[in-house]
This record gives sequence, structure tokens and C-alpha cells, in this order.
Amino acid sequence: MKISKKERQDKLQLTIADNPFVTDDDLAKRFNVSVQTIRLDRMELSIPELRERIKNVAEQTFEDEVRSLPIGEVIGEIIDIELDENAISIFDVKEEHVFQRNQITRGHHLFAQANSLAVALIDDELALTASAQLHFNKPVQIGERVIAKAKVRRKDDRRTTVEVRSYVGQMLVFRGEFDMYRSTTQVEGGI
Amino acid sequence: MKISKKERQDKLQLTIADNPFVTDDDLAKRFNVSVQTIRLDRMELSIPELRERIKNVAEQTFEDEVRSLPIGEVIGEIIDIELDENAISIFDVKEEHVFQRNQITRGHHLFAQANSLAVALIDDELALTASAQLHFNKPVQIGERVIAKAKVRRKDDRRTTVEVRSYVGQMLVFRGEFDMYRSTTQVEGGI
Repeated sequence: MKISKKERQDKLQLTIADNPFVTDDDLAKRFNVSVQTIRLDRMELSIPELRERIKNVAEQTFEDEVRSLPIGEVIGEIIDIELDENAISIFDVKEEHVFQRNQITRGHHLFAQANSLAVALIDDELALTASAQLHFNKPVQIGERVIAKAKVRRKDDRRTTVEVRSYVGQMLVFRGEFDMYRSTTQVEGGI
Repeated sequence: MKISKKERQDKLQLTIADNPFVTDDDLAKRFNVSVQTIRLDRMELSIPELRERIKNVAEQTFEDEVRSLPIGEVIGEIIDIELDENAISIFDVKEEHVFQRNQITRGHHLFAQANSLAVALIDDELALTASAQLHFNKPVQIGERVIAKAKVRRKDDRRTTVEVRSYVGQMLVFRGEFDMYRSTTQVEGGI
């Protein structure tokens, strides 16, 4: 039995508020209507699509979570983080990130994604990179999506070692080990 | 004995064409006029100041010299280069290069300066970074000028190792060893 459009839209709104990660497919099945109808409902109700909803939730969540820098300073988009444990970010390679001649991603963008993720991972007010060992395993092309996965490997009072592995699909394209200096207060002079 | 303004300006133009690196001081002494007069002469003749002239000469020179990338893709400003030997670049740290919170330069900008200088140094059509070891010795503040000095340390058929040391004044702020893959042809698949 179909319910009225008004009733469906009311329930749709409640359902998405309850679980922002529900897909249009799931909603279509639940309300026994087409995916196209769900899309039109969302448009009428000004509810953004799933990917936008995930991004909004992630940004709100991680803005409060990340301590070492404002989330806007992270290069790429954080999609998961547990401070002092591990983190994941996504970086989509666009025209401004590649060498003109061969459309290969410039190394400093892969480094920036990995390094800023290593900074974000630190559960302290100040995190600075002291040293790093980098391996560029495969050229990354324009249009590819780089997924960086950071893991804390060692930690003592003042230093944390973070390993970052970056993938395009299943392929390892970059690996970096970052030795991070951490502090609850601002740095003066040294490091 | 003073010469006429017309005559002085003609000679001034020839002198600068002959040696673009002559200073206003030197010119003032040579023509027995004040530095201010020289500046006014230059303005009337539309001859840019020394720093601009150096930059123009450098860009023209290095554009033809650098093989591995268009000079515009180098981060910082190359002021000297001998392919496969050594190179120097300058990078002025501005607001967009620092962490908001503490005004310390973000690591990926120091890396980008050094890495792009290492690429520019390679006397081949293709240069890609295979691996790198980085040391961030001192935080660099906003407004500071970073001078990166690159030197080729080892070279064989396909690889070149470049060491880059970056200074603010006399202080070493960054050191990187870059293992560069080189080729006369475009890369396919694996680096």
C-alpha cells in the first residue's frame, strides 16, 4: 500500500536525520517507490545527496576531533580518524597537481596529503615534522583518486612515528615514514 | 665635466644593455650624478630596477637551460643552475605557506622547493623522484627567505642522487636527499 507524498516526505526526512548514510536505493525500497522519486523528494526537501551528507558529517565530526591543526589545513579530505591510532584521507588529482608535460602528479602533492594526515593524527596541540623517509612507488595520473592510510607505529613523550601508505585502487603509489615532534605548547627556536 | 641629460641617458642605456647587473650606485659614480638622478633616468627610459633585471635575465637564461620541466613549474625562483652539477633557488615564505596557528612554514612547501629544484637539476627530458630522506631542522617563519642549494652527489645511467640544503641566513633549516629516476623518454607504468 502506497502512502501519500506528504506522508512519505515526512518519513523520508526523519529516516535521513536518523541515519544520514542511508542510500537512495535503500530509501526507494523502504517506501516502495522509484529511486527517481526519492531524488525528487530530496530536491524538494533540500536534502543533499549521500556523498555530500557524508562529507558534511565527516567535517563536523573531525573538526572537533583533530587537535593539531584546523581541519581546513589538511590536504585532501579526511574520511576517518582515531587520534594517535590511524586515519584515512582522499585526494583527487586535478590539473593543477600534475606536471604539464606528462600529466603525472607532482611529488609534493602526495607528500602534502600524507604529511598533513600525519599532523592531523597527532593527539596534541602542536605537531611538527622532524624527518621523513619517502618512497614514490608508482606515478599517479591526473583524474586518479589517492587514498592515504596513516598508522601510528611508535610513540614516546615527545615523538610519534607515523607510517602513511597511499593507494590508487589496490596499487601502492607512495609510502612515507614521518617522525613527528609533538608538544602541548608552542615551539620556541629548536626543532 | 657633466654631460647633457640626453647624452647621459644614451650612455646609460648602452651601459645597462652591456651589463644588466650594474647597480644604480655604480651608474651614479660613473656619470657623476646622484643615485636619484639615475633612478629618474631609468624611469624615463623604462629600464626596470636591478632586482627585476636580474630576474628577467635569469628566467630567460634558465628557461632554455632547464630540460626536465618548464621553468614556471619550479617552486621558488632559480637564481643559478648548472645541469647535473648544482643549483640554487630562493623561496619567500608568505601567509599562504604557513600554519595559521603558529605562522610556521608547512613542510610541504620546503619539500616542494627542494624537490622541484632537484628535478630541474637533471639534464634529461624526464626526471621523477623515486625516494627521499628529509630532515626539517628548524621551523621557518613567515616573511623569511629560504635559499635552497642542490648538489648532485651520485649519478649512473638511470638514477641521480641530489642533496638539497635549505638555509635561512646562515641557518640550515631543511636537508633532503632525493633519489631521482631519469630518462630521455616518457615513463610507462613503473617508475
